[in-house]
Amino acid sequence: MATLQETVRELVIANRILAREGVVDAFGHVSVRHPDDPGRYLMSRSRAPELIVADDIMEFALDGEAVDLRGRTPYGERMIHGAVYELRSEAQSVIHNHSYELIPFTVTEARLRPIMHTSAVIGHDIPRWDIRDKFGETDHLVIDMDQGRDLARTLGDRRVALMSRHGCVVAGLSLREAVMSAVYLQVNARMQLQAMQIGTFDCLTPLETEKCTARQVSPLGLDRAWEYWCIRAGSDAL
Amino acid sequence: MATLQETVRELVIANRILAREGVVDAFGHVSVRHPDDPGRYLMSRSRAPELIVADDIMEFALDGEAVDLRGRTPYGERMIHGAVYELRSEAQSVIHNHSYELIPFTVTEARLRPIMHTSAVIGHDIPRWDIRDKFGETDHLVIDMDQGRDLARTLGDRRVALMSRHGCVVAGLSLREAVMSAVYLQVNARMQLQAMQIGTFDCLTPLETEKCTARQVSPLGLDRAWEYWCIRAGSDAL
Amino acid sequence: MATLQETVRELVIANRILAREGVVDAFGHVSVRHPDDPGRYLMSRSRAPELIVADDIMEFALDGEAVDLRGRTPYGERMIHGAVYELRSEAQSVIHNHSYELIPFTVTEARLRPIMHTSAVIGHDIPRWDIRDKFGETDHLVIDMDQGRDLARTLGDRRVALMSRHGCVVAGLSLREAVMSAVYLQVNARMQLQAMQIGTFDCLTPLETEKCTARQVSPLGLDRAWEYWCIRAGSDAL
Amino acid sequence: MATLQETVRELVIANRILAREGVVDAFGHVSVRHPDDPGRYLMSRSRAPELIVADDIMEFALDGEAVDLRGRTPYGERMIHGAVYELRSEAQSVIHNHSYELIPFTVTEARLRPIMHTSAVIGHDIPRWDIRDKFGETDHLVIDMDQGRDLARTLGDRRVALMSRHGCVVAGLSLREAVMSAVYLQVNARMQLQAMQIGTFDCLTPLETEKCTARQVSPLGLDRAWEYWCIRAGSDAL
Repeated sequence: MATLQETVRELVIANRILAREGVVDAFGHVSVRHPDDPGRYLMSRSRAPELIVADDIMEFALDGEAVDLRGRTPYGERMIHGAVYELRSEAQSVIHNHSYELIPFTVTEARLRPIMHTSAVIGHDIPRWDIRDKFGETDHLVIDMDQGRDLARTLGDRRVALMSRHGCVVAGLSLREAVMSAVYLQVNARMQLQAMQIGTFDCLTPLETEKCTARQVSPLGLDRAWEYWCIRAGSDAL
Repeated sequence: MATLQETVRELVIANRILAREGVVDAFGHVSVRHPDDPGRYLMSRSRAPELIVADDIMEFALDGEAVDLRGRTPYGERMIHGAVYELRSEAQSVIHNHSYELIPFTVTEARLRPIMHTSAVIGHDIPRWDIRDKFGETDHLVIDMDQGRDLARTLGDRRVALMSRHGCVVAGLSLREAVMSAVYLQVNARMQLQAMQIGTFDCLTPLETEKCTARQVSPLGLDRAWEYWCIRAGSDAL
Repeated sequence: MATLQETVRELVIANRILAREGVVDAFGHVSVRHPDDPGRYLMSRSRAPELIVADDIMEFALDGEAVDLRGRTPYGERMIHGAVYELRSEAQSVIHNHSYELIPFTVTEARLRPIMHTSAVIGHDIPRWDIRDKFGETDHLVIDMDQGRDLARTLGDRRVALMSRHGCVVAGLSLREAVMSAVYLQVNARMQLQAMQIGTFDCLTPLETEKCTARQVSPLGLDRAWEYWCIRAGSDAL
Repeated sequence: MATLQETVRELVIANRILAREGVVDAFGHVSVRHPDDPGRYLMSRSRAPELIVADDIMEFALDGEAVDLRGRTPYGERMIHGAVYELRSEAQSVIHNHSYELIPFTVTEARLRPIMHTSAVIGHDIPRWDIRDKFGETDHLVIDMDQGRDLARTLGDRRVALMSRHGCVVAGLSLREAVMSAVYLQVNARMQLQAMQIGTFDCLTPLETEKCTARQVSPLGLDRAWEYWCIRAGSDAL
């Protein structure tokens, strides 16, 4: 099992990867469940993912309370993370982002479907959550556990849920899996938009999606992608 | 209150950020009201924003007259800036740019609407000014105060106005706010074009736009974005 | 005739080029027939093309058996390569990739056609293979010689075949030719998608395609492009 | 008047700029009329523009005959350049490129029109030449003076002509003007494609095009853009 120090280092790298691949800009965040205490998770203080270093990583209880505040400001939307960890004991990592290429699918009626085998990790059925439905006209931020839990219930046991006019939430059985789903979610959105410009498009069946996902998250797929993303994100220099 | 030297430094960085984020190419400019004299503003001599250094920054009266010419050539369209400062005493910064992704919305009937919470800062109602309406067939440059004031009146009390076949003008309560509006104006244009390719799209309501904007321009949003853009633009090396 | 060492070096560079030009991400691979033994081919161990060094290059029999395993993990889809070399004695290089810009043409009814003289190398008639047709709902990977040979037969004597929801296979009379076809296949897909957004589009005739290809793969065309791609991919530093 | 050495240096920089701005890949070329002999022009040997150094620059008679071959291989399509210099005594520079963003407009019925004031330099009326019309099914290369002159006549006294399934030719009163037209031709194509996806679009009138062009090619516009492109292309290091 990974030590806390190893987990923190991998979390810093995950932040850099999401920035390098264009999944996040100044906003968006990634967390990982605490390796020694399933009732806690690790996440950076409020800072752009591209800039995060080990010292920025904080520890939170599932209700969003900081264990070690030390004068640092947490992300306002950390409740998304705690609510997913609370509902899904198997989830080890959560990502929230506003990928520009994803947003068009959060404001239209189109459904995202996996159209390439390597993007099967996004799942065949991607629900969409709209904060308006239960909370009215807000600033769209998920700032309390009520909102977080409502979103987590929409996500259910899936890897990905979209959020109207806002972005998405991604859950993974490991940090690396969550990063892979977030990256290919964006790639699939880009490719599907192009396919829709051509005309009717085909996608993976539910069974194919399941089989392709198993391949992608096996070490052969996941470790190869992780090594690649690490080098691109400059993890050597960290 | 910021000193003149601090303001000049921030203005240089703002130029670099707008270049790095692709909002400006060789053309386009950003100004800030003089910190000690509301009747003056600071802006670079005529030069591509990516290349600007502190010594390029000049001081102008609101009518566009240079206070300290020193043989330097000012931007031909500086009247845009003076006219906005003149009409709007609360405005502290003005940006004029020709973002390539914005231009399609200046030559078609489509209306830009904020479709993501972080792009709410562009406002819900974005007017469009056409130099043809009062000034006929010109070279499209805003070169005197009559033209500048006409444009400023179209902008009114908003943050953003488009200019037909030309670009936009952005006003902010601070330099950082103006930069944020200019960056997300471009991002929103890109995303909305994609959403329109899918079909009918949804956007923030006027109330949501107001609430999201308040969040974005709070220190939690604005400082986080500013730190990110600074690092990307290489402000450390300045 | 190239020595084994020269061939390995060129293969490493080809991997870097395909990564630099965006044809491959963490996945995709390129092989070359062994310069001394037509019954073998050279290809990297399972690793992202951008990261490959000479020591990663392995030797395989056409049936996919590794000659010198040394504990390394081969690509799961190497059967694509062996099957093409087996069917086509003149083929000296094979590339398999999942270019994001190509995928839309693998899930829609549109046919790719060469629309620019320099992309004639993709051929006028590009068939599409669907693993579903004979092998049902799978994880889409080509993992045995039956699947590889079925794909190779669809490719026939052409340079390029698409693979539904997956990517493509490219064959060349030399490594450089295969790289050129793979790069311009992606470029042509991007340009054709744009042309289709405008309306009906024209393309090269079969005779023009043949004549343009002859020019492109002559030393005047191929060496010029190869020098350019090498420098961009940083081959000097290898 | 510029010396030969200065002209060669500026020509090398122009090559680098066209590569940096994505107007050319391994193919495409730019020439300038000889500063001391209007019956000759300067152009690189056959090499990708990004890689060109002063020693690559050769001297040609207008009929394409190399004055100083020294074992170097000239571009196969240099006749385009000579034919334009022959027909248009005022032209000082010619560019031929295959910009990927331009190609969609060479295979469809759409007409390119200047939709932004800074892209007015492409002209209001852009003709299209098709090598098929007089020369049948060829490899699309312009390889003799008959073909070059036919293309030059289609260009006439304009700055830009498109070439079906091939690219464009650009003529300028100076090297800098030609580079500006080539860069904004590509930018305008990208923006116009987006505008067409929205719907009906407006463009500059012929009179506006003329007025905007005069501004752009004045020192205020041209020198500012040139300084910017030089820095981006790394001209300092040359």
